[in-house]
Amino acid sequence: MRSFLPVLALAGACLAVPAAAQFAKPQEAVKYRQGAWFVLNQHFTRIGAMVRGRVPFDAKLALRDAEMVAMLSRLPGSAFAAGTDTPDDHARPEIWTEQARFKEQNERMVSESARLLAAARTQNLDQIKAAYGAASNTCKECHDAYRSN
Amino acid sequence: MRSFLPVLALAGACLAVPAAAQFAKPQEAVKYRQGAWFVLNQHFTRIGAMVRGRVPFDAKLALRDAEMVAMLSRLPGSAFAAGTDTPDDHARPEIWTEQARFKEQNERMVSESARLLAAARTQNLDQIKAAYGAASNTCKECHDAYRSN
Repeated sequence: MRSFLPVLALAGACLAVPAAAQFAKPQEAVKYRQGAWFVLNQHFTRIGAMVRGRVPFDAKLALRDAEMVAMLSRLPGSAFAAGTDTPDDHARPEIWTEQARFKEQNERMVSESARLLAAARTQNLDQIKAAYGAASNTCKECHDAYRSN
Repeated sequence: MRSFLPVLALAGACLAVPAAAQFAKPQEAVKYRQGAWFVLNQHFTRIGAMVRGRVPFDAKLALRDAEMVAMLSRLPGSAFAAGTDTPDDHARPEIWTEQARFKEQNERMVSESARLLAAARTQNLDQIKAAYGAASNTCKECHDAYRSN
């Protein structure tokens, strides 16, 4: 049985607390990160619908969604502690063998989410589009490398 | 087949957007609220561990967790739209037949979460304890009435 040790480097990127102190069981870390991703993705997708012109642009709603995305982006990184690569998850084992690269991609996602929020604050759709595209790329890069379908 | 109509009263308590515009499928609403509750509960439980003396009180961490709780508390209410009472969820049908009461309980949870955040800002453990207890009661009341096991 694998131990549930904190990955301090990863936790440090997100919340300054050891991951082992945060989750009572590995399965809780999995549900936590899956839940945070799902809620984040819902709000990100709502901005995407405006960016793609599928729904009318509403600067106030876009800002609200961007606030959620920026806040939620900081959560999942703390929940990829060693020992939490359970079979019912989409996380590839490379997450734990390539921690520096995974951490770097996670940080990029967090910072592009913060930029999306800054863009939403301008209420300028073109700026939101650009920031959305950049944030979206960080999703794709990380999914390509570290998510199994 | 039930339609996926917005429950405007509920949505209004949380985000001022019709729920139908927010979720592409009922199952997404279910995953959204379950994800938000799970992440919220993790942060709430961390405050609870300090309140109960199971881990040392750390005002900074408590504040961070309370910020998450307050923010996340505003999310699930928007995701209890009509037509989202799927069998794989813990939501009792009374949620949709007692909407006024459910909405009221939801609003109490949101406001007690805001009070918990205010208490966390004081950095006073006694105030946090009191606010935690009050917030905890809103969880229990709603679970007793509206959650199946």
